[in-house]
Amino acid sequence: MSQAREGDVVLFISKDRKRYLVRLTQDGALHTKHGVIPHADIIGQPLGRKVLTHLGVPFLVLEPSTEDLVLELKRATQIMFPKDIGYTLMKLGVQSGSRVVEAGTGSGGLTLALARVVGPQGRVYSYESNPQALALARKNLESLGLLDRVELKERDIAAGFDETDVDALFLDVRHPWEYLAQARAALKQGGFFGAIVPTTNQVSQLLEGLAEFAFAYVQVEELFVRDYKTVPGRLRPMDRMVAHTGYLIFARKVESPFGQIVGHGAGKIVWPPEPETPDSEEE
Amino acid sequence: MSQAREGDVVLFISKDRKRYLVRLTQDGALHTKHGVIPHADIIGQPLGRKVLTHLGVPFLVLEPSTEDLVLELKRATQIMFPKDIGYTLMKLGVQSGSRVVEAGTGSGGLTLALARVVGPQGRVYSYESNPQALALARKNLESLGLLDRVELKERDIAAGFDETDVDALFLDVRHPWEYLAQARAALKQGGFFGAIVPTTNQVSQLLEGLAEFAFAYVQVEELFVRDYKTVPGRLRPMDRMVAHTGYLIFARKVESPFGQIVGHGAGKIVWPPEPETPDSEEE
Amino acid sequence: MSQAREGDVVLFISKDRKRYLVRLTQDGALHTKHGVIPHADIIGQPLGRKVLTHLGVPFLVLEPSTEDLVLELKRATQIMFPKDIGYTLMKLGVQSGSRVVEAGTGSGGLTLALARVVGPQGRVYSYESNPQALALARKNLESLGLLDRVELKERDIAAGFDETDVDALFLDVRHPWEYLAQARAALKQGGFFGAIVPTTNQVSQLLEGLAEFAFAYVQVEELFVRDYKTVPGRLRPMDRMVAHTGYLIFARKVESPFGQIVGHGAGKIVWPPEPETPDSEEE
Amino acid sequence: MSQAREGDVVLFISKDRKRYLVRLTQDGALHTKHGVIPHADIIGQPLGRKVLTHLGVPFLVLEPSTEDLVLELKRATQIMFPKDIGYTLMKLGVQSGSRVVEAGTGSGGLTLALARVVGPQGRVYSYESNPQALALARKNLESLGLLDRVELKERDIAAGFDETDVDALFLDVRHPWEYLAQARAALKQGGFFGAIVPTTNQVSQLLEGLAEFAFAYVQVEELFVRDYKTVPGRLRPMDRMVAHTGYLIFARKVESPFGQIVGHGAGKIVWPPEPETPDSEEE
Repeated sequence: MSQAREGDVVLFISKDRKRYLVRLTQDGALHTKHGVIPHADIIGQPLGRKVLTHLGVPFLVLEPSTEDLVLELKRATQIMFPKDIGYTLMKLGVQSGSRVVEAGTGSGGLTLALARVVGPQGRVYSYESNPQALALARKNLESLGLLDRVELKERDIAAGFDETDVDALFLDVRHPWEYLAQARAALKQGGFFGAIVPTTNQVSQLLEGLAEFAFAYVQVEELFVRDYKTVPGRLRPMDRMVAHTGYLIFARKVESPFGQIVGHGAGKIVWPPEPETPDSEEE
Repeated sequence: MSQAREGDVVLFISKDRKRYLVRLTQDGALHTKHGVIPHADIIGQPLGRKVLTHLGVPFLVLEPSTEDLVLELKRATQIMFPKDIGYTLMKLGVQSGSRVVEAGTGSGGLTLALARVVGPQGRVYSYESNPQALALARKNLESLGLLDRVELKERDIAAGFDETDVDALFLDVRHPWEYLAQARAALKQGGFFGAIVPTTNQVSQLLEGLAEFAFAYVQVEELFVRDYKTVPGRLRPMDRMVAHTGYLIFARKVESPFGQIVGHGAGKIVWPPEPETPDSEEE
Repeated sequence: MSQAREGDVVLFISKDRKRYLVRLTQDGALHTKHGVIPHADIIGQPLGRKVLTHLGVPFLVLEPSTEDLVLELKRATQIMFPKDIGYTLMKLGVQSGSRVVEAGTGSGGLTLALARVVGPQGRVYSYESNPQALALARKNLESLGLLDRVELKERDIAAGFDETDVDALFLDVRHPWEYLAQARAALKQGGFFGAIVPTTNQVSQLLEGLAEFAFAYVQVEELFVRDYKTVPGRLRPMDRMVAHTGYLIFARKVESPFGQIVGHGAGKIVWPPEPETPDSEEE
Repeated sequence: MSQAREGDVVLFISKDRKRYLVRLTQDGALHTKHGVIPHADIIGQPLGRKVLTHLGVPFLVLEPSTEDLVLELKRATQIMFPKDIGYTLMKLGVQSGSRVVEAGTGSGGLTLALARVVGPQGRVYSYESNPQALALARKNLESLGLLDRVELKERDIAAGFDETDVDALFLDVRHPWEYLAQARAALKQGGFFGAIVPTTNQVSQLLEGLAEFAFAYVQVEELFVRDYKTVPGRLRPMDRMVAHTGYLIFARKVESPFGQIVGHGAGKIVWPPEPETPDSEEE
């Protein structure tokens, strides 16, 4: 995206730090209280530069990062934070060409990040039971030009997923432990499972469910990001930070250790081995 | 990768938690003190299952995640941690099809993660001045089947990068501030710059350099990951964690605010606007 | 303690960083593999200096901080960390002259810190059901000369505390929620309650108990300490840190909002007001 | 303080969470928009209870913790946070009877915490060059009844401290490295030194100064506190937290290793031994 083209999504930033995420169209224009910028002024030109409104007010026009897209998304719901999305992609092994299921779609933040990584050869299947949320996500993804690789499905996932043999599956729903049979059915043998929940009580419930359904290599993690003020001679962290977004839980679907269909009651797996614990001190 | 195929990279895990990252070949075999597993036992079969050595000792065989690959890499140097890699990919907007420069290659940890995301349509240009490190990285990337999209270059980056107009550029070198003119020359207008350094003194020096070379939207961040013990009825964090890997610095190459070549002495940019500061309390 | 006196506790540190906590006696001597240091060489002299063994090997002799005492304690059990102790003293309002109850005594780490702060006018009542632990704590406190202000009691606290009207009470026991009626009986009206537990499940159980027993201003907190390498030109955090010691829970005993004895079944208090929540975002 | 007495400081809290820190006087009254509460209603009664204004509006009346006092202080300046104060007291070994110097006084937050711990047998010497700040601190400490053990001094500490042989000394000033000769002169041999600074650049400068002035056992630390929402069935951290208050630096005054007056140019001490480093990984 060295020169901006029609269909590209760009980020306009005003001097007073207002941000406008815009998909360029031949006849489009950005209307702000500081004046108008026709998209035609952008198309065919490099980004990363200053453009002027018809009133002569400068804006910076930039290609958005994946983080910018997630943060600037029109949203109806709490979104996953970029720190959690980036880590989740690493843990789920998502790469160019991956086939991934997620639920719920929400406003489409994780969806768009998945779509950018799996690329045109990959596929994201995203389930959402709330039609308003799904409509918003569809609009968001369409404006980013990503709908060619995303299938949005309005569905209660209690009914199961249409897909099988997917590489990875991620649940951002209130009671993820209720859908573990469905998750197993969709995942390929050895596939990657992930979830995010905000409370410790939910973590405990999900851990119980994962044991029951023979998931292995279960990990519970949380991430923190600390930002610094960028004054070289007075380097110091910002005064405040986000303290909590959610607990991330990762696991692997493995063959049932009993050679049979695993369901409620199958009990705790002692093998396969758990990932090495960095410490062994007990309470 | 629903059935393992020749050329796939898989992870064998023993009961005593030893991990073996192996690329499958028709005639290959994993030799362990617990016995031998011929690759032929794996090829054509689903992963995520138990396999037995010729002595009857069970191993779990799994597809590795990007994190597994980074952590299991043969390494001669400190590697970037998965938490930092995942976040960096989000901040640099790396996606399927991106063209990215990095230096130094090191053991190839970031390289492989970039290569998996940019996919066959993208390209990673990775510079390393140490021939031993480069040879190891080449071996690592080859064994992962990723060399088709990575160009490894033995080079002191003081001489500059061969590429221009790249989407993103990342420096994991001791004195990143010495290569900012070269980084500007390689990046497209508006391109994404990133770096990692371990000390606060280096952060300050890099911040000075970024101001001098007209980079904008400078951010300094650090990430923490906290792991939990996964016992549902006794949920608690691990006793110890990694406290520091490095400071991440991100910035954007923007048009010189002076409409001319920007170099040493050009001074601090007051426009474009800095990202909104979450707080404004002063020391 | 400008000149060391008989009865003072001092810290000897060898070049190879071995630490010896010693109470000075007229005829005593420190015996190490590097030679002997008679206490008489220390008594009457300032601390913070180098002393030589009879073999000429140097040791540094220092007054221990409260943290040093806690960390060097002979211990049979997990101890509270200095970070948690220091914060607890602030939250419980412990000061010169305070009367404080704690259970269990453990090895006496919190006990000694309390004893140093409450001073000769204050009083620490410390309960422990394990006779071995109590014997060790007694020895530890005696060697620090603090037994004049500490009463150690071998007792199962299910039977209640002997004291009433105490300023503060702290529980470091496995099931603190089982002793809240006893805690209320010991605390003065308005008194400070504190506890430490390692798991989130215990936190939830204790929160339920505190609501039932009409405690107010309930807070759950955890502390982290990050250490830095002290090289001025290469300032950076240590690579690893303690990620978890325990969750601290603080509350205040207030008058029953129903004007009657509060016990099981009294339900959740909506008044008095909870401390202002820094945020109100919901899951 | 089982029954409130004249002269006690109490905390009134309204239903809408307004907090009023008040010293009780026989004829005093708390005036709020919800009505008036005569101090006489409080004196002679237990705290931790509900009291009504003349309009019948309920307030809770409580004894303040040390933390409450620090946070409710009338302040003209940034104060030290309770987490940092509590830890500092542990590191400096402050106890009942200690003699401690601090500069600057600021609004008196650390001063009051020190005064409560050192008790009537101890002494706090607090220096402040700003007369307005000192007047406010005096008023704050007077209203808490702590002036009997605190000496406030309006003074530029470049001129040195009046005291010698003090147990501990703490600097909360902009350039603490400029006063290390003065700090050495005030501290007893082996005494405890502490400081707080907000930026990494200041930490580096102070570390250089401490080496030059033969301080030993230098530590740089930072503390984080994370608060949780106190709903037992939905336990989770608050969304936001304080990310930075300051870096704490601690050190010990030891005998000059060269047996002479130590000053600028004396160089880095290699003995006494540094505290054991929890890790030794290098950049």
